[in-house]
Amino acid sequence: MSQGSDIEIARRAKLKPITDIAAKIGIPADALVPYGWTKAKVSFDYLDNIQSFSDGNLILVTAISPTPAGEGKTTTTVGLGDGLNRIGKKAIMALREPSLGPCFGMKGGAAGGGYAQVVPMEDINLHFTGDFHAITAANNLLAAMIDNHIYWGNALGIDQRRVAWKRVLDVNDRALRQIVNSLGGVANGYPRESGFDITVASEVMAVFCLAKNLKDLEERLGNIIVAYTRDKKPIRARDLKADGAMTVLLKDALQPNLVQTLENNPVFIHGGPFANIAHGCNSVLATTTALKLADYVVTEAGFGADLGAEKFFDIKCRKAGIAPSVVVIVATVRALKMHGGVAKDNLKAENVEAVIKGCENLKRHIENVNKFGVPAVVAVNKFIADTDAEIAEVQKAAESMGTRAFSCTHWSDGGKGTEALAHHVVKVIDEGKASFKPLYPVEMKLRDKVKTIAQEIYRAADIACDASVETQFKDFEAGGFGHFPVCMAKTQYSFSTDPGKRGAPTGHVVPIRELRLSAGAEFIVVVTGEIMTMPGLPKAPSAEQIRLDAEGKIEGLF
Amino acid sequence: MSQGSDIEIARRAKLKPITDIAAKIGIPADALVPYGWTKAKVSFDYLDNIQSFSDGNLILVTAISPTPAGEGKTTTTVGLGDGLNRIGKKAIMALREPSLGPCFGMKGGAAGGGYAQVVPMEDINLHFTGDFHAITAANNLLAAMIDNHIYWGNALGIDQRRVAWKRVLDVNDRALRQIVNSLGGVANGYPRESGFDITVASEVMAVFCLAKNLKDLEERLGNIIVAYTRDKKPIRARDLKADGAMTVLLKDALQPNLVQTLENNPVFIHGGPFANIAHGCNSVLATTTALKLADYVVTEAGFGADLGAEKFFDIKCRKAGIAPSVVVIVATVRALKMHGGVAKDNLKAENVEAVIKGCENLKRHIENVNKFGVPAVVAVNKFIADTDAEIAEVQKAAESMGTRAFSCTHWSDGGKGTEALAHHVVKVIDEGKASFKPLYPVEMKLRDKVKTIAQEIYRAADIACDASVETQFKDFEAGGFGHFPVCMAKTQYSFSTDPGKRGAPTGHVVPIRELRLSAGAEFIVVVTGEIMTMPGLPKAPSAEQIRLDAEGKIEGLF
Repeated sequence: MSQGSDIEIARRAKLKPITDIAAKIGIPADALVPYGWTKAKVSFDYLDNIQSFSDGNLILVTAISPTPAGEGKTTTTVGLGDGLNRIGKKAIMALREPSLGPCFGMKGGAAGGGYAQVVPMEDINLHFTGDFHAITAANNLLAAMIDNHIYWGNALGIDQRRVAWKRVLDVNDRALRQIVNSLGGVANGYPRESGFDITVASEVMAVFCLAKNLKDLEERLGNIIVAYTRDKKPIRARDLKADGAMTVLLKDALQPNLVQTLENNPVFIHGGPFANIAHGCNSVLATTTALKLADYVVTEAGFGADLGAEKFFDIKCRKAGIAPSVVVIVATVRALKMHGGVAKDNLKAENVEAVIKGCENLKRHIENVNKFGVPAVVAVNKFIADTDAEIAEVQKAAESMGTRAFSCTHWSDGGKGTEALAHHVVKVIDEGKASFKPLYPVEMKLRDKVKTIAQEIYRAADIACDASVETQFKDFEAGGFGHFPVCMAKTQYSFSTDPGKRGAPTGHVVPIRELRLSAGAEFIVVVTGEIMTMPGLPKAPSAEQIRLDAEGKIEGLF
Repeated sequence: MSQGSDIEIARRAKLKPITDIAAKIGIPADALVPYGWTKAKVSFDYLDNIQSFSDGNLILVTAISPTPAGEGKTTTTVGLGDGLNRIGKKAIMALREPSLGPCFGMKGGAAGGGYAQVVPMEDINLHFTGDFHAITAANNLLAAMIDNHIYWGNALGIDQRRVAWKRVLDVNDRALRQIVNSLGGVANGYPRESGFDITVASEVMAVFCLAKNLKDLEERLGNIIVAYTRDKKPIRARDLKADGAMTVLLKDALQPNLVQTLENNPVFIHGGPFANIAHGCNSVLATTTALKLADYVVTEAGFGADLGAEKFFDIKCRKAGIAPSVVVIVATVRALKMHGGVAKDNLKAENVEAVIKGCENLKRHIENVNKFGVPAVVAVNKFIADTDAEIAEVQKAAESMGTRAFSCTHWSDGGKGTEALAHHVVKVIDEGKASFKPLYPVEMKLRDKVKTIAQEIYRAADIACDASVETQFKDFEAGGFGHFPVCMAKTQYSFSTDPGKRGAPTGHVVPIRELRLSAGAEFIVVVTGEIMTMPGLPKAPSAEQIRLDAEGKIEGLF
């Protein structure tokens, strides 16, 4: 790339003091808790003060079903936010924090790309303001208190075989997936099988992202079920008296983080739950704060719209009492071609037919978003090799669904590259067509919730449950958790549970493997395939290339 | 206490902006990296700029052999620093960062006490500026890269039975002391025994505290020996290409942290190696920075002078090329009585005889300090029950050793309570009597180094080594590590290896259990007893009491 890598572009950026960025959206300097000169948290005191402000408009950025060709959802979120500011609108972006683990595994940061980036990107991709470290600490304090309770006599009668709580680390370390702990004799406790997840997969992370305030955080942490007794009575974090200390460990972290784009527009980056075991959106607190401070808030949800947007609507929006005004679905011509059957190596050649075929995936997502009562707009994240004829087909596909697609060049042009999209998004919002409603009511039976999503969104013929899963459905309802929404864990690569089925498959059956209760986050995770909650490192991890150069700058991170 | 608890006193404090504190010692605002408004790191750029400044005088605060009665070394360090400022001297304190783990175990913070405290004490005792989290991350990335290397084919030929590197967490969790990892089949690697230490016990922490700059840090990290091959060839972090990424994870953390005392005097708090597996002093970078910026720098070393001061002299001062001008030995009448044979429950009653007897311990430490060519002064950290007759005996004991003892009331009076001590310390420094030299030359054989410390400092008759230890001495010398200093791991409660032997025992034998090589920190740990590198939680951990009160303030932490 003649313009340089993401990190080179980011380093050329002229960052403004974070106090200036805050001032743009009316936050006074004394409401900030600075972390360096270009990152800050916004204090709880200030958050209390702005509760009476009216809310701006919420824009969700989601995507077609992902392919190895890449879509650029975060990049488009940043590009659109810059574009809105560029056309004179007061807009804030609300994104997820990247996880440290993958940074040292596969190459690639998570703060946008090209000229649509959030800075300081090295800090954001490394320790940032320490939120994930705080979550790790809170999670592992709870774990230590469980084994400590058993060690000192087990007054609560925890069944060691039924400890559900795992430890976490923000590192890709397959060696920790399954361990036996407490070996070495009497002084070290009672040996049992356990394991580690990556920090972002922790229920503490999900709770953190759904908590409305510190009180709500403590309540939810207390509700977490960490183990069961021999007669299957749940033991909660509250029973171990761990909720208070966990809240103390998280109290600073829960304040939203403010940073800026390369074009000096405000961005909240806060929370980052794993999209395949949790709901995959940034924190409720960051989103609701942004809504108080801007006319337009651009946020994103993990994976494709069938997973990310559905969970954003049915979990986050429902719980937080917020409603999107419009959804932007990101597509690339390359990815559509893959959905149309083209192999990754052949993406450069023009192939209008493949685009037409691949647009079935896009159209399905548009239709799905509309089912939630929200209008959808398409952003084509443009690559140099895309031809006019190909883009025209995407536009036709969008028009066939009653909407429009815009070719966006934010990667190379920044906010200038999304101006047309930004104008249209504002127009759609002004038309006031959105009338958001979740897909299912909370009163619906758990099994029916899953079936509704499978049929309405995944277009499956049915779901298939083993006897054990049917029992879990009944047990959770009997246990008082029937009113929870379901949090689907499914491959992001297909509407079906077969990652190889691109495009817009129908008539498949969704096998339900197991259910997992997140009593603190208040949802039931529905597992439809392998869920990896602790990644491993590749043969040559990017950590091997990451170092400081002679000038003390980081090389190899991106 | 009528004046309130430590946390109540700390909360009443009027903190100044950290930019004001920095300005007092000539650090401009743009040389700071703020963490909130009352904590900051000092940037590397600025550290480069001040290298030409001349050094101030270094004052080490150490203590008699600790007893359950407590001595108050950190409190006295803070009190003396405030006292020096109060009498018009430019003084900075340099302390260790507290570990998060113990905060949630046994009650008690680690930022001084009473009116001799460092603030913001809640932040300092919790995540502070994230240094320990960065150390945890760097340590565990290296661990993941070891198992990942084995997983992908083990090109370096690591013997899985000889992996020396452990993972760490900053939590008291006995269940992690001994584990078997990589269970669960092919995808998770090769099962092997391993375990976790607490973060402060990591060699990364020791390296962090001894590194002179980022380059030195990377070099030392690369030197760490993580495993051996089947034919016992060492494998270093550098062989795994982990040193660069570890340095990147630590680059922000390595900048010293600036905070303030209750009297608004500057304090560096940076690094906190476990005193029983490492050298137990704050970072070289913080100490050398403080020396450039003040006329007097007050620092402390872990445990009693036989352990902490010896390691401070023979490891830290030697490696950093710094030399103390005077040593302050902290004693309490209560602790001296315990050394004189009084039980903990009887400490309130006057017992002049016991004080006289207990002063043998104090006198031994004075004599030992003088062996390093440095004058010693005694600070009596005064408790209300101490009688004039008792304190007079301590003063007599000090005078019998050619020095003086000062009764100090900094706990209740702040810097005013150490004025006399401060004046005397300045006088001793002005007399210029210090002529620091380490106890042994680096060229001395490893075994002789240990014997020299045992005989000169512990007053042992000899050391006793098993054949296996004798072999280790030879192997380490053959391996090229003979020039390393030794880092003694011994009970802090006695000059001997029997914690029950208070006072000033002589003629004992010091059994050497094993040696451990810290090739990155550049010392050989000499183990003379049980070393606990991962604490456990007590039956009722203080975590159970820690929570936010109705106003959002932390209760139960101290």
